[in-house]
Amino acid sequence: MLSRLKSRNIGILGGGQLARMLCLRGSAMGLNIHILSPSESDPAAQVCRNWQKGNPNDPKDLESFFKKVQILTFESEFIDGSALAEAKKQNPIQIFPNPQLMQLLQDRLSQKKLLQKYSIPTARFEVISTKNEVLTILQRFSKGVVFKQRRNGYDGYGTHVVRNALDLRSFVKIFEKSGFDYIAEEFIPFKRELAFAVAINTKSSSSLPLVESFQLDSRCLWVKGPVLHSRELPLKKKIIQMLKSVGYKGLISFELFEDKNGDLLVNELAPRVHNSGHYSIEALDHDQFEMHLRAILGLKLPKVQNLKPGFAMYNLLGSGSQSPQLVWPNEATLHWYGKNENRKGRKMGHLTCLAKTPGLALKNLMRIRKEFRL
Amino acid sequence: MLSRLKSRNIGILGGGQLARMLCLRGSAMGLNIHILSPSESDPAAQVCRNWQKGNPNDPKDLESFFKKVQILTFESEFIDGSALAEAKKQNPIQIFPNPQLMQLLQDRLSQKKLLQKYSIPTARFEVISTKNEVLTILQRFSKGVVFKQRRNGYDGYGTHVVRNALDLRSFVKIFEKSGFDYIAEEFIPFKRELAFAVAINTKSSSSLPLVESFQLDSRCLWVKGPVLHSRELPLKKKIIQMLKSVGYKGLISFELFEDKNGDLLVNELAPRVHNSGHYSIEALDHDQFEMHLRAILGLKLPKVQNLKPGFAMYNLLGSGSQSPQLVWPNEATLHWYGKNENRKGRKMGHLTCLAKTPGLALKNLMRIRKEFRL
Repeated sequence: MLSRLKSRNIGILGGGQLARMLCLRGSAMGLNIHILSPSESDPAAQVCRNWQKGNPNDPKDLESFFKKVQILTFESEFIDGSALAEAKKQNPIQIFPNPQLMQLLQDRLSQKKLLQKYSIPTARFEVISTKNEVLTILQRFSKGVVFKQRRNGYDGYGTHVVRNALDLRSFVKIFEKSGFDYIAEEFIPFKRELAFAVAINTKSSSSLPLVESFQLDSRCLWVKGPVLHSRELPLKKKIIQMLKSVGYKGLISFELFEDKNGDLLVNELAPRVHNSGHYSIEALDHDQFEMHLRAILGLKLPKVQNLKPGFAMYNLLGSGSQSPQLVWPNEATLHWYGKNENRKGRKMGHLTCLAKTPGLALKNLMRIRKEFRL
Repeated sequence: MLSRLKSRNIGILGGGQLARMLCLRGSAMGLNIHILSPSESDPAAQVCRNWQKGNPNDPKDLESFFKKVQILTFESEFIDGSALAEAKKQNPIQIFPNPQLMQLLQDRLSQKKLLQKYSIPTARFEVISTKNEVLTILQRFSKGVVFKQRRNGYDGYGTHVVRNALDLRSFVKIFEKSGFDYIAEEFIPFKRELAFAVAINTKSSSSLPLVESFQLDSRCLWVKGPVLHSRELPLKKKIIQMLKSVGYKGLISFELFEDKNGDLLVNELAPRVHNSGHYSIEALDHDQFEMHLRAILGLKLPKVQNLKPGFAMYNLLGSGSQSPQLVWPNEATLHWYGKNENRKGRKMGHLTCLAKTPGLALKNLMRIRKEFRL
C-alpha cells in the first residue's frame, strides 16, 4: 500500500478518450501521467502536461518515452510487440499488461482458444484462410455467421454478419480484397448484450458490476446497470481463474451475450479500460480508470460499490456538425473528449446519470441527449 | 444551457491545488483550461497542457494570457485589480468574480461592512491603525480579541488571538513591525466551526451543504457533514440576497462560528473554491469546482445532492519528510497535489470518505491517515 513518491511516473501509449480519462484520474490520484501520441490535438494530449509527440509503434519514439517513466500501459490492444521489446532493451521498465499477453489477446484466434482452454462459454468458431472456407461456412453454422478480422477490429470495423447466401456473396468480395485472416463465429441470437471488467494483479482481484450494453451498428450507444444475473458469479470465477493462470495485471473488459436460455457467453474481451465501464466514474466508489492504475501499481484492489441503485451511460456520437452544441445538464454528468473533428458516428463524449433504477437513469439520458446538437 | 464549442477557453490565475482541481474538473467537462502561474512545478501546472509561465499580478503576463481565453477566474482573492484592469484594456474578456468585488472582499474591513449592511450576523469589530487602539482594545472586547490583517491573511497567517495582557504585549510588537492595518474582532467562544459555499449567477443560485470544519493552529484539519442546523436556511437566504444585490457571479465560500447559544455567525468569506468544499468531489453529484465553472459559464445551477448520508475530508499536512510515503486506501479517495516541496504544515493532499454517518466517515479517515508518512 505504501509507495515512495519517485515511482509515480506512468506512461500511456495512445491519446484517445480512454487515455484522457486515465490521465485525469491518475492526476487526481497524484500520479505523473505521461502520454505518447501523434497529435497535440489528441483528446489525452489536451489534458496532459507530460505529453510527447510520437508514434506508439515507433521504437525510437518509444525509447525516448521510456526514459521518463517507470511503468507503461496502453489505451489500445493493437500495439506492436516487437517495437516495445526493442525499446525496452534500452530502458528496462515495467509494462502492464504484459506485451506477450497483449499480443495473445489482440488476435481473436488465440483469444478464443484461451477462453476454451479455461472452459469459458463462447460461440463456436473456425479459422478462415481460404475462399472455399468462406463459401461453405453456412453448412456448418446454419443460424448465421459473424466474420471477424483476426486483428485490429473495433467498434464493428472488421466485423461482418452473414445470415444468408446474399450476405455471404458480399462478404466474399470483402474477404478477397482484404487479404486478412478472419475467424468465423456462430451467430448467437442473443436476448441482450452484457459487459463487465475485472482488475487483477498478484495481490488481489476485483470485478466491476455486470451491466447491459446496447449496440447500434456494432457501436456502443448506451450502458445501464447494475444487472443481477444468476450466471454472473460462476462466470467471473472462471475468468479470474484464467487471468491468474496467465499472470494478467491490469484491468480487462469483457463483452458478453445473454442467449435465449439465459446463458452468458463471452463475445469479446479487451485488455484495457473500455467504453462499457465509463459509467463507473460517477456510479462507483472506485472507477475503472482508478482500478486499472491501482492494478498496475501493484496496490491491493478494493471491492467496488455502487453509489446509487441505478446508473446509465449514453455515448454522444458525432453527426458531422460543424458547430456542435453542448449541454451541461443538471441531472447528469457530461464528459466531452475535446476531439477537434466531429465525424459521423465518432465517440465525441458521453453522459452518465445515477437514479433509483437503471431504467430511470437511461430514460433521463435519452431525454437529455435530445438537447445536444452534434 | 447550450454552448458553442468556441467559447470554452477558461483562464485561471494561480497554480496551487485549488487551480489544479478546477483544471481537472474543467477538463473532464470538456473545457479548455489555461493556467497562469510562476513555476512549472506548481500543482496546477503539472496537470494542464495550456500552462503559461508568468506572474498573475504582472500586466504584461496577463496581457499575453488574456489573448488565449474568453473567461477568466481565480484561485485566490489576493489579486492586483489594477494589473487586471490594465491588461483587460488590450483584450476585453469576461472576468468572474468581478474584480471590483474581489477587491472589496479581499479587504476584511469592507467585507465586514458588507455583511453588516445585509444584517448577516458576524462578530463585532474595530479598525486598528494606531498602537493606542491596540493597547486599549481589551477594554472594549473583554472576552478577547482576534486581530486580523486587513489584507493577504490566510490559514492563520496574519491572524492573532489575544485573550489577556500578556498576549497583547506580544501582538503590539508584531503590529509595530508589520506596518499593516488590522481589524480587531471580538473573540467568539464557539462550540464549533462550520462552513458552506454558494454558487450564483444571474440565472440562479445553489448552495452546498453545511459542514463542520476543524482547525488546528488556524489551519483546516478536517471537515465532516452534512450538518443539519435550524439557522442554516435563514442565513443562506440573507447571504444569497447579499450576493444578488452585489451581482456576484461564481462560487463563494463562507466560514462560520456556531456560538454557545447555537447561533451562526459569519467568520470569514472567500470569493472562490475553498478547502472546506473538497469533500464535494466524491460526496455530491456536482462538486464545488464544477459549480464554480457552471456559475461563471452562465449555466443554470443545479440543486446538489449527497450521494451517501455522511462524508468527511481530512487534510494531509506536510511534516517536512524528504521521502513522504503515500497510501491509496480502499475505503477513501486520495487526492495528492504533487507539490515538490514537503514543508511542515503545508497542504500536500487530502482524503475523502463516504459513510453511513459523518462521524463514521471521519473515524475511517483518522485511521487511514496514520498509514501515511508525511
